[in-house]
Amino acid sequence: MAGRKHRVTVVGSGNWGTTVAKLVAENTREHPDLFEEEVQMWVYEENVAIPSDSPHYDPAVGDAPQKLTSVINKHHENVKYLPKIKLPSNVVANPSLVDAVKDSSILIFNLPHEFIGNICKQIKGHILPFARAISCIKGVTVTDDKVELICEYIGDTLGIYCGALSGANIANEIANELWCETTIAYNTPPCDRRSSSGADGPDGEKHRDSSGRVSKTELTPVPHDYPPVDHEEIRKLFQRPYFSVSMVPDVVGVSLAGALKNIVALACGFTEGNGWNATAKTAVMRRGMVETIRFAQEFFPESIQLMTFWESAGWSDMIVSCTSARNWRYSKMAAERGVSLYEIERTELNGQKLQGISTTKEVMSFLRARGVENQYPLFKAVEGIIDGTFKVEDVPKLLSG
Amino acid sequence: MAGRKHRVTVVGSGNWGTTVAKLVAENTREHPDLFEEEVQMWVYEENVAIPSDSPHYDPAVGDAPQKLTSVINKHHENVKYLPKIKLPSNVVANPSLVDAVKDSSILIFNLPHEFIGNICKQIKGHILPFARAISCIKGVTVTDDKVELICEYIGDTLGIYCGALSGANIANEIANELWCETTIAYNTPPCDRRSSSGADGPDGEKHRDSSGRVSKTELTPVPHDYPPVDHEEIRKLFQRPYFSVSMVPDVVGVSLAGALKNIVALACGFTEGNGWNATAKTAVMRRGMVETIRFAQEFFPESIQLMTFWESAGWSDMIVSCTSARNWRYSKMAAERGVSLYEIERTELNGQKLQGISTTKEVMSFLRARGVENQYPLFKAVEGIIDGTFKVEDVPKLLSG
Repeated sequence: MAGRKHRVTVVGSGNWGTTVAKLVAENTREHPDLFEEEVQMWVYEENVAIPSDSPHYDPAVGDAPQKLTSVINKHHENVKYLPKIKLPSNVVANPSLVDAVKDSSILIFNLPHEFIGNICKQIKGHILPFARAISCIKGVTVTDDKVELICEYIGDTLGIYCGALSGANIANEIANELWCETTIAYNTPPCDRRSSSGADGPDGEKHRDSSGRVSKTELTPVPHDYPPVDHEEIRKLFQRPYFSVSMVPDVVGVSLAGALKNIVALACGFTEGNGWNATAKTAVMRRGMVETIRFAQEFFPESIQLMTFWESAGWSDMIVSCTSARNWRYSKMAAERGVSLYEIERTELNGQKLQGISTTKEVMSFLRARGVENQYPLFKAVEGIIDGTFKVEDVPKLLSG
Repeated sequence: MAGRKHRVTVVGSGNWGTTVAKLVAENTREHPDLFEEEVQMWVYEENVAIPSDSPHYDPAVGDAPQKLTSVINKHHENVKYLPKIKLPSNVVANPSLVDAVKDSSILIFNLPHEFIGNICKQIKGHILPFARAISCIKGVTVTDDKVELICEYIGDTLGIYCGALSGANIANEIANELWCETTIAYNTPPCDRRSSSGADGPDGEKHRDSSGRVSKTELTPVPHDYPPVDHEEIRKLFQRPYFSVSMVPDVVGVSLAGALKNIVALACGFTEGNGWNATAKTAVMRRGMVETIRFAQEFFPESIQLMTFWESAGWSDMIVSCTSARNWRYSKMAAERGVSLYEIERTELNGQKLQGISTTKEVMSFLRARGVENQYPLFKAVEGIIDGTFKVEDVPKLLSG
């Protein structure tokens, strides 16, 4: 029997990280048989000033800068990144990364893509060898040589198993407990499968009929004095009445959908900004999804599961990304103004980069290195529009070819 | 070698029927090797008056009623159902149903669902025995006993093979040559497969790897002095630069998607009218699609093809139906006003029926007769909301169960 409980740490405390810490902490309270109540949240320490109109304003302190971790732990609110949302008091902000992760058997990574390499370097060797992780960082890293899933990068770097959470999720809505769905891809490592965990029912059973894609690392099993870490337990850690979790074993499908949608969002922005009607935009989005599936089937035939693309991380995230997200918004603006995306980055984003551009370039370069770029006419069209060698008006001809 | 050519008739001349006649007639002109140039369009004869501000107004005639067929054949415009769109002069309106179809080897059915039974009765025995048909009428007829595809009903009644055209298609947009896509499901009957038709390339080949779902009728093969009727020829009859056609062999998937989307559109209208946010609406739509696929897999396991649901007839039609179509619009209105759909039918539709209601009832009754209604929680929720036994607010709980 399990004598110990899982200790949970959220690595990251932005808008989305704090939201996830909130819902996870609600669940550790509801499942004291599985989890320690306290949830650690690593916070990149910074100074904040509480404005005088805030309920947390203390005249004795005034607007003197205070440490963000102290404010969170005192007022149970991340005043900087998730203001006006009450956090459960069992969320404990911790400014020390190593201290926050060292005793935790479940790590949730939730911070911007570009920081993950450095974070992994800092905590490597300081975590429990049998820890399990979930990455809320979407996507993949594509070079000419390979496509690397971010969750697998984390897992391989730390020598643990790491799954992925992705979906059509808007942090502020979830923080306000408006209902939505998400997808968690978690392919329980064979060393963690316990006969007793078959108890999670027919759905869990089906999901465990997985591709068997496993980490490159020799994994240390979760000790038997801990509860298992399988679909059932992970669902209990994340599912809330306002946050419906679907568990799948397909980390590849979830990660690819999370990355390639950025290309499709650019395509939708271009065509919509060019005045196309809704059915045409829907057709462009559909083609993008079909090319995403083709990519997955071509390069990950051993592990991809077609139904994954019907999950929130597939269908829903694609629709929301092509209707309201950043890549879509700025590519629409570029088409409306008749300027390039680079011009938009310069004038509207202060030189900040749009992720869709690099994703498009990397994916096309990867495809070209294999001579199959023509099987992805929509991705190719997006690249051409970015580079100015192709016009939005030509999309139908290319897609019908 | 083929000595004869296919003669084409469009049965129906509403907004969508006239649009299809236009694009088909453009194609018979472009492919004189396959098709006779003239396209017959059966028109339910009625009298129309040409308003004085119309370019077709003739002071000598004034606003005296004229026959719609005469107006179409004289002015090449369906002034009543597709005004301001110039039809190719090779579209010939014909008020006689039997005369319009009797010599045609390709029949395109495009008229409201409720008329098809009577139309088939009238033409049965008066068509070429080897004619092939495409139904632009979407969907299925569901009774407690069975699910009947409309295209199969047409084919079985007439003793010919009938495929189905369906997609996110808005007639006026296509008539104005705004780009969109469609899906044609056509499972070339074995008796029509000719060795030479392998020439339509790898894509056509793949599509012909079909489920082999065949008509109940003993079919008369298309004679060899006619060109074949296979995916390549059908695509040539429908594809235009502004109308991109995807051919699939899965008549079941296309028909089911076309029918069950009406249930999902009601669900989306209810939740949106209830003030739910975009991610929640997307989640509801996604669940509807997943239940549609489940239905298809459960009751047509031998013939369904999963990729069909990524076609325009699946993905795109679902999105457009849940964003702008009739079922969606009125269920949204019902939720906004806090009244029942029946009340909306009474006050807004003059007692006209909303198709989604009967589809929901029939499908739920079919599922209940098999004891599997609980595997379709979204469909069930829609039925409950229609009947007032269930509240929109309870949807998340039901879907998470």
